[in-house]
Amino acid sequence: MLADAISFIIESEKLKKILRRSNPVGLARKENSAEHSWSVALAASVLVPEVAPQLDQLRVIKMLLIHDLVEIDAGDIFCYGDQIGKDEREQAAAERLFAILPEKTGEAFHQLWREFEDKESEESRLANAIDRLLPLLQNSQNDGGSWAEHQVTFEQVYERNREIAKASPELWDYTEKLILNARARGILPSSAL
Amino acid sequence: MLADAISFIIESEKLKKILRRSNPVGLARKENSAEHSWSVALAASVLVPEVAPQLDQLRVIKMLLIHDLVEIDAGDIFCYGDQIGKDEREQAAAERLFAILPEKTGEAFHQLWREFEDKESEESRLANAIDRLLPLLQNSQNDGGSWAEHQVTFEQVYERNREIAKASPELWDYTEKLILNARARGILPSSAL
Repeated sequence: MLADAISFIIESEKLKKILRRSNPVGLARKENSAEHSWSVALAASVLVPEVAPQLDQLRVIKMLLIHDLVEIDAGDIFCYGDQIGKDEREQAAAERLFAILPEKTGEAFHQLWREFEDKESEESRLANAIDRLLPLLQNSQNDGGSWAEHQVTFEQVYERNREIAKASPELWDYTEKLILNARARGILPSSAL
Repeated sequence: MLADAISFIIESEKLKKILRRSNPVGLARKENSAEHSWSVALAASVLVPEVAPQLDQLRVIKMLLIHDLVEIDAGDIFCYGDQIGKDEREQAAAERLFAILPEKTGEAFHQLWREFEDKESEESRLANAIDRLLPLLQNSQNDGGSWAEHQVTFEQVYERNREIAKASPELWDYTEKLILNARARGILPSSAL
């Protein structure tokens, strides 16, 4: 029913008050998860043709449009911090939120969100890679940004992001250079230092 | 080339500082055009199956992801205000921005943006309808929001949005009720009063 679709759209507005750790490039404020979700969906529409044209672009984009909605109930959980209880809170959030939708769309969204979380399909690996790449681009452009603020080290960033290679060797090649360059510029220090 | 795609993604961050007239639902701040673009793309992914399942969903979503990028150079031009010079400024912005991209994607995006602006294809009519619907939902939920602030009248809103009927009679039926209801609640006054 159209009214259920509209209720879901209104509920989704709440993602605009969930703040992330990093700043948009050049801005003196934290990014919210709604504008982040736009960035990753837009990035998918330009990166899929470059690095993985064989993938189902619509699925990658939709996964990224909805991947953070669970934060409306569960909050944004920092990827370099404590992950305890994350899965249960996000699962409960997915069940509540997608149940607002017309049944068929709700089930499709729930499956897409699950697919993103499971990181098994090619589409979900690329979607996850793009989700990781964006804050790296922001921090690199913002002279370290949230890395410095949260004492994140070169080793943590390198380790977490090497998974990008599974999605696209070309994208990992670019990302690895970016991370090494950030260390060389002194904006992402080694833990040994 | 991947590097061009990344340059475009970094350039697109600038949309996060372009402020619109309306507030996100329940928030005491203006919405920026990046989070708005997320909302309309997400809304397309739930509304297309309800009101126009025959349309190319990917095209509608991509049109909405990129429709406001020209504001990076041209700014957000209020739909109930002065429109002088709007087309020329936005056309120049489209040429600059899409030229950053790898050639094939740049051409595809330029065409999609033009299609959105021309409002001739079925996909572009639905995309425009969704772009109009979202601030109506926000202002209705925010007890009048930007309508009151900018002295927008019932007649202006009704006239501007009846175009939604060309995209989907069902969506216009919902929208018309919302506008009439806003007048009845006293949050969208008639110009005659």
